[in-house]
Amino acid sequence: MKYQTFAIKPIGIIHTPFKKKEDCPIQGVYVPDSIGKVIVFPEYEEGLESIDIFSHIMLFYIFDRAGNIKLKRPPFLDDEPRGIFAMRHPCRQNYIGFTIVKLEKIVHNVLEVRGIDVLDGTPLVDIKPYIPKFDFIQEASNGWLANKGFRTKPPGRE
Amino acid sequence: MKYQTFAIKPIGIIHTPFKKKEDCPIQGVYVPDSIGKVIVFPEYEEGLESIDIFSHIMLFYIFDRAGNIKLKRPPFLDDEPRGIFAMRHPCRQNYIGFTIVKLEKIVHNVLEVRGIDVLDGTPLVDIKPYIPKFDFIQEASNGWLANKGFRTKPPGRE
Repeated sequence: MKYQTFAIKPIGIIHTPFKKKEDCPIQGVYVPDSIGKVIVFPEYEEGLESIDIFSHIMLFYIFDRAGNIKLKRPPFLDDEPRGIFAMRHPCRQNYIGFTIVKLEKIVHNVLEVRGIDVLDGTPLVDIKPYIPKFDFIQEASNGWLANKGFRTKPPGRE
Repeated sequence: MKYQTFAIKPIGIIHTPFKKKEDCPIQGVYVPDSIGKVIVFPEYEEGLESIDIFSHIMLFYIFDRAGNIKLKRPPFLDDEPRGIFAMRHPCRQNYIGFTIVKLEKIVHNVLEVRGIDVLDGTPLVDIKPYIPKFDFIQEASNGWLANKGFRTKPPGRE
């Protein structure tokens, strides 16, 4: 099993105002008003049934323009090098991205979302509902982010 | 871009007490004391640096034994058919699974986790820290799960 690979096929495309990596927000929480359009390919539209009952959804996507993977590097919000699995950095094994957005509107196969933080044209590979009953962990800690405030991306770092 | 596929390669394996689909919990929140062992392949061990500072982590995996995809079906916790993107059901496009677990212990490349809800031997494809600052959405709704309590999996449904 170790060497089996899985083929992942996009189910849609995410359109956002962020055309270049440098413009791309670090996390959606810092751009609560950024609007994105998630276009699910029409052949999957039926799978969106009932999604409008949720206020927030999770988008799973591929960091398709991310650079070389390093197992350790400083995150955008810290200068200390950390392991790639202890941060959300795009340059990671399998390049899987994850973000939670507010679902504003859905018309057929097009979802308007708020608080989006991904690059324009990003390939979407899954959508799941955000469910506080499952995803809300009162006692969780913020790890190395506990005392870190927001800052812009340090120049020269991908 | 629509037709480009991405190759996903496991970075580890998740071991759990759940050997058969019928025994597998619906969500980790319902089995808060189930213990799993996440074995990250040794070549990625360096990427785990600093992960021990977090109390909870997200595991991204592949539902490698899930059955046929249906765009609409009744979820385990409801009898109403819903779209696959409005639930966490395993039989979904790209078979990407997501769960949040408590990180109990880490020794080299082996993580002991609590609240695990996946099948034994599941291929792991990414780990990200759970960060309340980003993932804690106070105002989110529970969608169709709002008035649903726990129940066991209805027989005959995958």
